Formats: sequence, structure tokens, C-alpha cells
Amino acid sequence: MSKVAIVIGSDSDWPIMKPAAEVLKQFGVEAEVTVASAHRTPAKVRELVTTAGERDVRLFIAAAGGAAHLAGVVASYTTLPVIGVPINASALNGLDSLLATVQMPSGIPVATMAINGAKNAALFAVEILAVGDAALSAKMKEYREKLAKEVDEKAARVQAQI
Amino acid sequence: MSKVAIVIGSDSDWPIMKPAAEVLKQFGVEAEVTVASAHRTPAKVRELVTTAGERDVRLFIAAAGGAAHLAGVVASYTTLPVIGVPINASALNGLDSLLATVQMPSGIPVATMAINGAKNAALFAVEILAVGDAALSAKMKEYREKLAKEVDEKAARVQAQI
Amino acid sequence: MSKVAIVIGSDSDWPIMKPAAEVLKQFGVEAEVTVASAHRTPAKVRELVTTAGERDVRLFIAAAGGAAHLAGVVASYTTLPVIGVPINASALNGLDSLLATVQMPSGIPVATMAINGAKNAALFAVEILAVGDAALSAKMKEYREKLAKEVDEKAARVQAQI
Amino acid sequence: MSKVAIVIGSDSDWPIMKPAAEVLKQFGVEAEVTVASAHRTPAKVRELVTTAGERDVRLFIAAAGGAAHLAGVVASYTTLPVIGVPINASALNGLDSLLATVQMPSGIPVATMAINGAKNAALFAVEILAVGDAALSAKMKEYREKLAKEVDEKAARVQAQI
Amino acid sequence: MSKVAIVIGSDSDWPIMKPAAEVLKQFGVEAEVTVASAHRTPAKVRELVTTAGERDVRLFIAAAGGAAHLAGVVASYTTLPVIGVPINASALNGLDSLLATVQMPSGIPVATMAINGAKNAALFAVEILAVGDAALSAKMKEYREKLAKEVDEKAARVQAQI
Amino acid sequence: MSKVAIVIGSDSDWPIMKPAAEVLKQFGVEAEVTVASAHRTPAKVRELVTTAGERDVRLFIAAAGGAAHLAGVVASYTTLPVIGVPINASALNGLDSLLATVQMPSGIPVATMAINGAKNAALFAVEILAVGDAALSAKMKEYREKLAKEVDEKAARVQAQI
Amino acid sequence: MSKVAIVIGSDSDWPIMKPAAEVLKQFGVEAEVTVASAHRTPAKVRELVTTAGERDVRLFIAAAGGAAHLAGVVASYTTLPVIGVPINASALNGLDSLLATVQMPSGIPVATMAINGAKNAALFAVEILAVGDAALSAKMKEYREKLAKEVDEKAARVQAQI
Amino acid sequence: MSKVAIVIGSDSDWPIMKPAAEVLKQFGVEAEVTVASAHRTPAKVRELVTTAGERDVRLFIAAAGGAAHLAGVVASYTTLPVIGVPINASALNGLDSLLATVQMPSGIPVATMAINGAKNAALFAVEILAVGDAALSAKMKEYREKLAKEVDEKAARVQAQI
Repeated sequence: MSKVAIVIGSDSDWPIMKPAAEVLKQFGVEAEVTVASAHRTPAKVRELVTTAGERDVRLFIAAAGGAAHLAGVVASYTTLPVIGVPINASALNGLDSLLATVQMPSGIPVATMAINGAKNAALFAVEILAVGDAALSAKMKEYREKLAKEVDEKAARVQAQI
Repeated sequence: MSKVAIVIGSDSDWPIMKPAAEVLKQFGVEAEVTVASAHRTPAKVRELVTTAGERDVRLFIAAAGGAAHLAGVVASYTTLPVIGVPINASALNGLDSLLATVQMPSGIPVATMAINGAKNAALFAVEILAVGDAALSAKMKEYREKLAKEVDEKAARVQAQI
Repeated sequence: MSKVAIVIGSDSDWPIMKPAAEVLKQFGVEAEVTVASAHRTPAKVRELVTTAGERDVRLFIAAAGGAAHLAGVVASYTTLPVIGVPINASALNGLDSLLATVQMPSGIPVATMAINGAKNAALFAVEILAVGDAALSAKMKEYREKLAKEVDEKAARVQAQI
Repeated sequence: MSKVAIVIGSDSDWPIMKPAAEVLKQFGVEAEVTVASAHRTPAKVRELVTTAGERDVRLFIAAAGGAAHLAGVVASYTTLPVIGVPINASALNGLDSLLATVQMPSGIPVATMAINGAKNAALFAVEILAVGDAALSAKMKEYREKLAKEVDEKAARVQAQI
Repeated sequence: MSKVAIVIGSDSDWPIMKPAAEVLKQFGVEAEVTVASAHRTPAKVRELVTTAGERDVRLFIAAAGGAAHLAGVVASYTTLPVIGVPINASALNGLDSLLATVQMPSGIPVATMAINGAKNAALFAVEILAVGDAALSAKMKEYREKLAKEVDEKAARVQAQI
Repeated sequence: MSKVAIVIGSDSDWPIMKPAAEVLKQFGVEAEVTVASAHRTPAKVRELVTTAGERDVRLFIAAAGGAAHLAGVVASYTTLPVIGVPINASALNGLDSLLATVQMPSGIPVATMAINGAKNAALFAVEILAVGDAALSAKMKEYREKLAKEVDEKAARVQAQI
Repeated sequence: MSKVAIVIGSDSDWPIMKPAAEVLKQFGVEAEVTVASAHRTPAKVRELVTTAGERDVRLFIAAAGGAAHLAGVVASYTTLPVIGVPINASALNGLDSLLATVQMPSGIPVATMAINGAKNAALFAVEILAVGDAALSAKMKEYREKLAKEVDEKAARVQAQI
Repeated sequence: MSKVAIVIGSDSDWPIMKPAAEVLKQFGVEAEVTVASAHRTPAKVRELVTTAGERDVRLFIAAAGGAAHLAGVVASYTTLPVIGVPINASALNGLDSLLATVQMPSGIPVATMAINGAKNAALFAVEILAVGDAALSAKMKEYREKLAKEVDEKAARVQAQI
């Protein structure tokens, strides 16, 4: 079955990235989670990515802070889609990780989400898989309807306070 | 046949986004190109996006400058993947369009490319379609090998100058 | 009677935007408050804005954080004045919402206030309505005189501490 | 007849601000244009603003670059609406003038436009005047329809190039 | 006797600016402290500055946050030296107040200190007065020697911890 | 006679700083100009500053780009007033030189001007010397009046174009 | 024996820089630690650096915040390698100290680490000394292997939480 | 003989990095120059770095623009010193490449130079090699003296213009 590989650069990123794993579960998409650092364990990252096909991995979500090279390094080893999540983990509030993730050179794209945008990374992964999966696509439409309803409920709560 | 919809906010963005259309052509992926502004023609954008399924559109590439709302507005109308390209079109060198494209709220992802990253937007679109298309996936691997060879040729040219 | 519509992108913005509602009340200007998201509930926003005239809405105050598209999307549906309030709701301290609100393309203006500038949004709304309402204009002049007096009182308190 | 006062901090800002005057003319709104510097001619600015009522001025457009204090200083003397245009006139690409114009303290709002957003300043001025002027409001709606048509024409031109 | 006028835009700036008053006292320089807002009390600021000569004021220290216009407005009314202190009082960490204070147009200088640099503003005021006052100049030299000694004491404390 | 010492970090800064020398001349203030680099010629800078008293130097204007340490290094050797001019001489448009000049630690102030603000540095130097020199003070007031007149002439030129 | 000199601009930087001293100890590299300010104690800095050879100092680590001139000033006095650590010690989150440390002019390099990157400064110092010291080089390789193992342990801990 | 490896991410970086090769030549330090992209040719980069010892490479200079991962990726494969040069090659003026190069995680340092700081990268490489090479150290001292003399000559040229 199709699988999404979530790679995080440090275990300190896990509390921020956990919602990504939860969203995938919610959509019934299988996920593998690995801590692997582009700088401290380059061999592990290469191994993880180049053997991904054997494990039915269809796309990657890579999250890192500071000079966030992880998503770019993952992308250098694969032609599967790579989604990057810049983590706010330094003095510069994630501006460094955002630029280090998004400003990729021509030829090797990384699909960048908002700073700490774990949930959206998973939702985008589902949207990609849903391109060829009508059932998943239907679930995503339901999810969006639920989102819209939640806004209405929030609106009601605010109106009640006025 | 699967199609990619390229939407640009202004015709002045066309010279920057043309390479996206060219890359798609090179990979044999059909594309439609439309100028539609999130702010000046909201009805046109809505129409374009909500009827996309009927035209076999499988994903969107949306490019805009300044307060670049186009990709986000497209994403608000569809659960198909939306790739955003921030255009450098204002005094702030594209920092405004980058932040306006990437910092999307939880629930509605936009896969953001580098500022003016037209080519990578198309390559990422191909990577998405290749998830379910082995022939396209093989073409993308060839493309990467060609990229690597070009680097070797560049290296040779530089070495010749020393 | 003339009415101001306050639209906020999320209920989490309400504590920041409440002072806007309070200022309008203080000036006797009727307000309606709605939670509506440009991205999660685009249909609701369109409905809200395009039917505004029927509810005697004369202008909009729209507040949002991150990739703050709300004010721009509201402005795309109406020729009534739209005042935008960038909310500090992301890692980037509101720089993202400021740029996403203020850098609007030629043709569709959004009158942007300071980050979290709820009170000033309401005061500017009153100034607009006061253009054609001498009584409201007089109230605004009194308000300014009160502001000046408060500065004098603050000066006295500081002087007392020296 | 109602009038809009355009104040620019330096004659070097005129080429950037001229479109504001042209838009007002196009809508049949009378305008007065003055060069007055918050720092070099504070008395002239005060005089200009405090006597505005006598000249039927209903609102101000103030444009300045660098440490752009002009709009804030104008606003300090009047309760008429003040629209600020940050001019890109320094090494920092207008980021300085944007922040100096928009980050106004609570109590004294300045409605800030995009950097060099002369045209939108005039359009917003028209929107304000149109709140109490149905004819002007109708013209603004026509203007918007024309804008939308221009986008369609641009789309056609781009399509022709593909 | 020569006097330094400290003007602060809001009483909330007083805890940050109090060290300026203390440093002046320490050097035996007389100071007057006033809360006056460039935007809320423009008349008070003008009065304060234009009558400064009568009170033997020889220079100004002006401190403000956000769109910090105070120092520039003070400078517009006087040819006495004006020292500006940008206060960190908004979401943007004082970058706004720094740029709004330092990027003054040609003709009207404001001598800008670091963000929240109250102490240095007072020290610079003393340096200015010391240009024509040998006793004050001697005191400043002693102050510098004391500063250097304090560094040596800090060095000793750190060395003791190793 | 009192003298102002202008120190520039590189001869490439001279075209930007020349107006400072011209303004001083215009006010009849004697100036010495030296190229001395905080990093390449530290001994020269120290010598220049510590012997300044013997040459009747009353204050310094120091200009540098990039990691602009010159003004801070000058200030470390003297208790005379030091005016810093950040030069726009790197990829970062002078933001680096501005921050490196203005963000001085407590104890050692540098009076910072706008990026490339050569003219204002000289005007501020004159304002300092004018504190104890009534004739110079009178000249500065005339200068300001001339400035104001020039604004009026610019206003006339703009009005003529409308 | 070869020694590394750690210089910090203020004792408040010690808690951030202590890990640098600890890493050097862990590698058996001798270190001297001094508090010396480029601005408050310029003579001490010069003395410390120009006599370094006599104390067998082979390279410098210099750490400072704000307008961080310390590393540059150290580099101006020596041709030994200087490693700079920008400290996050001001309102601007260390962006000021980063730019003031890294943007050195041509001729006088400072090897800049991440904001608050104390540990990496020491590791880089060890890498420099290891160029001519096979035993140290072997220790550094072991350290890297340990780092990689720690990542594996972290990965296990995260996996256990899923 | 000891060698320095210069790696550039793209041949378009060569005009900026050529001065690094020239400086090394001037000091009689052998250099190898390679074009290798962290993203397009990851295998080539790994090969180049892991076999460096066999070619007597003692340290690396790595230069890249945009999301500049090259220096970090080189550093992930070696414990030899890695000097990073951020190239100004994108819309963001090199701020992206600076942050992507300097903000490295704890454990894997990259010694970062100024944006486009090719010359200083080579000079720092020489300083590293000179730690264990008295002759090279002497050459560097001469170089510095020459630099200082050039400043004196520049000073003379400026003085001649006054």
C-alpha cells in the first residue's frame, strides 16, 4: 500500500510534526516516521530515501529548523514529491528555515509549507495521493466541509460573546 | 487526459512563468494557461477552479506577485493540489509574495516554490502526476540524469578557464 | 442605519479585534461581527460581502493573520471601502500578515492599519462615515481632545515619579 | 464641492504620485496637490491641514519616502480620513517608509496603501466619497468591470502567444 | 544652566527611558522630562520645542515606538541637536521604530541610538555638552575608565567560574 | 579653531561622503578627511583618534559599509561625539551597515544617521558645534529657512505641471 | 601547547559561550577565557590579541551581541584564524550581531558561526587544529560517529511514541 | 602537498569565486576547483568529499546561492574545515544563502564568510594552513602590511581630491 515517509531532522521537532502523522492516520494513509539529520547522518538519509521505493513510499515530508537542508537533501536523492516543513527552531523565528527550504535551485523542487505547517504538509500529501484515488479525494472533500462547519461554529461562539 | 492548469495573476507574469509551460510540454503533460486575478476577476477564478474537473485538470500552478493571494484563493475552491509561485514584482523583491503564498492557515495547503520558481513548479507538477504514472516517473529520472550531466559539462568549462 | 461589517478569519483573532467593536459602539455606530475564512469558507465570505448592501453595510473591517488574504478577498467582491488589520498570529510576528494585507495590486485597494491595530481600524471607519455626518465628525473631534488630555495626565504621572 | 488633498513630501515623489491625481480626475473628483515636508516645512503642513475644511477638503492622501512621517503628521492635525502612500525612495526599498506609515499608534489611524501605491490611494479616496454618493459609487462599479475586462484581454494576448 | 529635554511619546516608555534621566543626574546635567505625543498632542510638542530656548534647553532626547515620528517632529521645529531613541514597543521588535527614527530626509538630522538605548542617549547628550565644558569632559573620561574597570571585574567573575 | 574629523573606511565611500565635507565648508567649519580602515589599519585609526585633541578636533564623522565597525572603533578611543554614517556598500542594501553602526552597547554611543546620510552627518556636526556658538546657530537657522523655501519652489514646479 | 583564546564581549554572554569551553576541554584542547569589550576596553583587546603568540594561542573565538564588533576588531590585530559567534542579545534576535560579524570587508576574514553557535565554534577550532594533528583528527571522527549514534537513539525514542 | 578544494554549486558562481582561486595561487597554496551541486549531483559531492584525503585536500571552500546547502552537505561528509561562501544569486540579495549557510545545527560547523566573500574565504583558508606553517604565516603578515599600505595610498588619493 502507498506510504508517506515523514523525516524529521531532530527529535525536538517531533511535537511540532506529530499532527502530520495524526492527519495521515485520520485519512487512512500509512506513514513511516524517521529521525535523520542531513548533517549528522547523511548516510542514513541517503539510505532512507534511495530505498523508499522498496517500502512503497510514494512521497516524503521533511521537516527541519535553522539552516534547514533536510528537504533539499531528500529531494536530491529522489524524483518522488518532497514536501518541506520549515521549523521555527532558532533565534530568527523560522525565517532561516523557510528560506533554506523554499529557495531551491531550478531542477530540484521542494513543495514548501508554512513555518511549523505540519498539518498542511500531511493534507497536501493526501491531495497528491488523491489525484489517483477517488475515495481519498472524496474524504478530502468531506474534510473541507467539516472545516467550513467548524468556522460556522466558531462564528456562533464569537457572536454569543458580543 | 490529465491536465495541469497554470493561472497567472497578470500578463506581466507571463515571461517569468513561460518556462513552466515549456517544461510541461517537454514532459508531454497537457497544460491550460489562464490570466485571472484573485482581486480583479474573483468570479473568473472561482469559475475556472470549480469547473476544473470537467476539463480533466488534475492540479494547479498559480503565480502572483505583491500580496499574492491567487494560489490561496485557488486552493480555497478545490481539493486538487495547488502549487504556488511567488513572483518578484514589487519593491520588496518578492519577500511579500513569498510570505503571502507560503504562510497559509491550517487546512488549506499551498505547495510553495522559490521566488520566480516557474520551472520547479512544473517539475513538481510532473512529480505529482508521476506518482501514478510509471512512464512519467521514468522520464523524470532521465531528466535528473541529464541535469547531473549538465553540471559535469559546466565543471569542465570552468576547469578549462583555470 | 449605516453599519460596519467586521470580518475575522478565525475566532482566535477575536480577543485582538474586540476593541474595534467596542470603539464603534462608543461612537454609536452599528456593527455586525462575523467569523469567515477566505480559505476555509470562501462561499460564506462571498455571500457576506455581496449581500452587504441589503444589510446597510457601508464599509468592511477585515482582520487575519499569516498569509492574510481576507481583506483582499473581501475587497475583490465590493467597491465599499475595506479596512485591513494584519494580525500577529505566526512565527514571523505579523510581518507576513502586514505584507499580505497592504501590498495589494493596482485597482483593488485595502486600507491597512498597524499590526493588531483593531482600535485604529474602527476609528478610521468612523472617520469615513463622518465625512458625510457632521454629528459623528464632532464626536471624533471630542475623542481626539480626550486623547490629548490623557497624554497630559500620563505626563503628570511620569513627572510625579521623577 | 468635495475635494481630495494630495500632499507629497518632495517633488521627486511626483512622478510616482501623478497617477493618483489622474485617477481622481477620471472620476471627476476635484484634487489639490501640494509639496510640503513634515520635517522641512512643518508650519506649511499644519497650515495646509488645519485650513482644509475651508477649502472643502474631505480627505487627504499623503505620500513620503524614508522615515515617512508625512501621513502621520497630517493625521495628527485632522479627523478627516488620511490615506498614506509609502514611497520607495531609499536604500531599503520602501520597507522603511511602509513601516513608518502603517505602524501608527492607537488613536490616530493612517490608511496605508502598498509601496508606491498611488493609484490605489486615489481609488480608495473615491470609495470613501462614494459611501455618500450613489453616482460615484456607480462609476466605481463600472471601473471594476473595466478592470475585469482588461484581465480578459490580457488573458487573450497571453493565450495567443502559446 | 544648560538643560536636556527628554520627551517620550507615551508613559509606557518611561521604564525604558528612566536610565537616561539617571545618567544625566549622575553627570550633574539638568533634565526636564515630558510625555508628549507627535500624533495625539502635536500642539504640545510644537510648544515644548519652540519655547525650549527660554528654558535653557540645549538639546533634545526623543523616544518613541512603532511608527516613531516623535524625534523627527521635534527636529522639524528646532536647530538644536535631537537624539532619537527607538523603543521596542510593537510586534516588529523595534525594527519599525528604528527605521522611522533613523531614515530622516536630507536637511533634518536625528542622531539615532540603538533600540531601547536610553543610557547611550544620555551619554551622547553629555558628550555634546562636554564639547564646550572641560569639567564635563573630564567626568566623561572618568566614566569611561570606570566602565573599563567593570569589564575587568566581570572578567574576574567569569574566570572564577571556569 | 574647532575641527570636524571625517573618517571613511574606504576611498570607494568618498563619492557618498563628499557632501559632508561640502556642507561643513558651507558653514565655515574646518574639516580633516582621512581614509582609515578599522580592520586593515587599526593602528592608524587609534593614532588618528587619540591625537585628535592636539589637532583641535571636536567631533568625528565616521562612515563605513558592510560590517561597519569604524564608528564604533572610533568611539572606543574617545569621549568626543562620534556621528556614524552607514554606507550602502553590500548585497544587503546597507541594512548590515545600519545595524552594525547603530546597535552599540551601553556605554559607548554612536549617533547614527540614515544609510548614506552624509549631508545630515555634517548638519548634525554643525548643530553640535552651534550649541556653544551663537553665530553658527544663526547660520543653521538660515539654512533651515532656505530649505523651507526650496520646498515652496518645488511645490510651485509641481503645481505648474498639473 | 597550542591554545584557543575565547574572548567574550560581556559576562552576560558566558552562559551562552560556556559550551565552547566545555567542548574544547572534551577534546583536550587548552583554552583561555577572557571578558574584553571592543568598545569599553579597546586597549585590553589589543593587548590580549597582540601578545597571543607568546601564550601559544593558535586561534581565537570571539563572541558578542548587538553591533558585534569584537570578532572583527580581534581579526584586525592578528593573522591567526578568528571564529566569530553572534550572540542573540538585543531586540533584533541576533540579526544585528550576525550581520555585524559576518559581513567583513575584503582582506580581514571572520569565520562566522550560527547565532549563539558556541559549540560549533569550538568544534571548528578543533577542526582547524586537527589539520596538523592526526590524533585530534581521529577524536573528531569519533565525535561525529557519536553524534550519528545519538540521532539513531533519538529516532528510536520517537518511534516508541508513535 | 596540502591542497584546498573549492566547490561551487553552479558555473554561474565562477566569476564571483575566481578571486578565491587567485588569492590561493598568490600565496602558493595549491587548489582544485570543481562544479558540483548538492541537489543535482549529490553522488558527485559525496565522492569528491569522501576521497579528499587521498588528494591531500586539507580544507574546503564551498560556495552556493539561494537555498545554499552545498557547504553544509560538504561538511556532513568530512571533519576537515569547511568554509562557506553565500552567493548573491536570487531575488533576496543573498540573505537566503547567508542564512542557509551560517545557521548550521550543533555538531557540524560551517565557517561562513560575507555574501560573495570569495577573497576572504581564500584568506581564511591560508590562515588555517598557516597555523602549522611559519612561512605561510609570514606571507600573511606581509599581505596585511600591503593591505594597510594600500589604505594609505587611497587616503592620499582622496586627500588630493579635496
